[in-house]
Amino acid sequence: MIERILIVGTGLIGSSIGLALRQAGYAGAITGFDASASELAAAQEAGAIDGFAHSRAEAIQAAREADLIVLAVPVLAIMDWMQMLAPALSPRQLVTDVGSTKLKIAEMGGELYNRHATARFLPGHPMAGKESGGAALAEVTLFRGATWLFTPIGPETEIEAEWREWVAKFGANTLDLDPARHDEICAWVSHLPQMLSTSLAALLEDTFGADPKSREEIAAIGGRALRETTRLGASPYSMWRDVALTNEQPIAHTLHMLEQRLAHLRENLRTPELKEEFRLANRFRARRDP
Amino acid sequence: MIERILIVGTGLIGSSIGLALRQAGYAGAITGFDASASELAAAQEAGAIDGFAHSRAEAIQAAREADLIVLAVPVLAIMDWMQMLAPALSPRQLVTDVGSTKLKIAEMGGELYNRHATARFLPGHPMAGKESGGAALAEVTLFRGATWLFTPIGPETEIEAEWREWVAKFGANTLDLDPARHDEICAWVSHLPQMLSTSLAALLEDTFGADPKSREEIAAIGGRALRETTRLGASPYSMWRDVALTNEQPIAHTLHMLEQRLAHLRENLRTPELKEEFRLANRFRARRDP
Repeated sequence: MIERILIVGTGLIGSSIGLALRQAGYAGAITGFDASASELAAAQEAGAIDGFAHSRAEAIQAAREADLIVLAVPVLAIMDWMQMLAPALSPRQLVTDVGSTKLKIAEMGGELYNRHATARFLPGHPMAGKESGGAALAEVTLFRGATWLFTPIGPETEIEAEWREWVAKFGANTLDLDPARHDEICAWVSHLPQMLSTSLAALLEDTFGADPKSREEIAAIGGRALRETTRLGASPYSMWRDVALTNEQPIAHTLHMLEQRLAHLRENLRTPELKEEFRLANRFRARRDP
Repeated sequence: MIERILIVGTGLIGSSIGLALRQAGYAGAITGFDASASELAAAQEAGAIDGFAHSRAEAIQAAREADLIVLAVPVLAIMDWMQMLAPALSPRQLVTDVGSTKLKIAEMGGELYNRHATARFLPGHPMAGKESGGAALAEVTLFRGATWLFTPIGPETEIEAEWREWVAKFGANTLDLDPARHDEICAWVSHLPQMLSTSLAALLEDTFGADPKSREEIAAIGGRALRETTRLGASPYSMWRDVALTNEQPIAHTLHMLEQRLAHLRENLRTPELKEEFRLANRFRARRDP
């Protein structure tokens, strides 16, 4: 049923989807589109796409001819494409996305898609990525063992079931969630760690960045603890701006809770409350590393 | 000159020092002491020590007969041993430590050691470790490529120079710092990441730990970002209590700065200030991953 696929956004995730499709035995056409000509060229060279649209107009034409359109761009761009594509598509077609937030996308999907005479839309979110993006870093195994979340709108259709089968063939475990719950959980396990890492790296840059001697000391003395807690500081604003704009309240809530928790620990560096914090943290980790 | 070594504390760091000494060609005696009989047995089985003292009294006797005593226990226990050993030792002997904070240890070293008729004390701190300890995790390569900090008290003696040569043979890079500066820098690059990770893990445990469904969702959805930012949550209170007690002001300062930075980011999730935070964080990371 799915024999022609258009991937909009051939960066890390989009290109990895193309590679994973081929690895899983998909024999149909894969067309790509990206605002960056170099990303498109890298995706084609990697074998993630077999051809590409040269302009938005060509991409919309390619979408008309596709069975499945995968939107693998930042969240606000996904919503732009959802609006552009809705009037061009027909009920036999499926659009899906890989955006980091789901509530606003699912709301738009319910308004513009999944109705009589419109195409279907299945909101999706593979929990895979790197702090740096780009087709050059794409990997056929990126989704192996990862969780691929869906926040479906209405009952499942045949073409949706077929796309889920491909995702399972990528080695991912699928999990369905309510979109508001998705955004709340992702605020805790993904967006908060990102903002924390960005804040810590920005604070260190502000505090020590201007002094070469301090920079050398930080580089010499900082080990794995510093590397891991600031690694996500390398993540691009372009992607996270959209996450912040479309999930502001849940992210603000988690940040506020963490600020209070840090203040509590700070005020208890000399009291038995510090022991209680370590006990809770030890228990959290023991659940994950049994 | 160094032909008999006593290692007090045969956990991860103490046992790794024993293994690294052997690997580097040290042919003298290595005696161990640990409050835990099972740690002592594990250290001996691993080949990190050739024999051990069975009691504190025996350990003090072994110290009298040693050229070098390595204190590889938490900071407050290091200070206890410094006080117990000082009256028992003579000027030809060197005591060194591996404690995570240095100002209070260096102050005590200046009072009880490095004087006429006392032994020498060289405060040290290898930047190596794991979130879990114990002799069973000891590695001969633990210090390879790591930075081994010293905060020397007075001019270098021959036996200090000899110990530094062994440390260099472990593959570590040595760096001398003023002890107050050591504690300030370590607050930023080690103690703050630890407290942050403990706070985040404790907050997640408090928020989701009691609900099995939430725990499953967190486990399924949380990826590398969550794992890396909470990994240090597994660290033991027993070690970090002493760090908090002996470096309270610098740690409290870094925590307070981070709380303010997180609040600033939270208040700017929709403004161009978010871009500036990502720019600074990107620059910090680019210095480390050029």
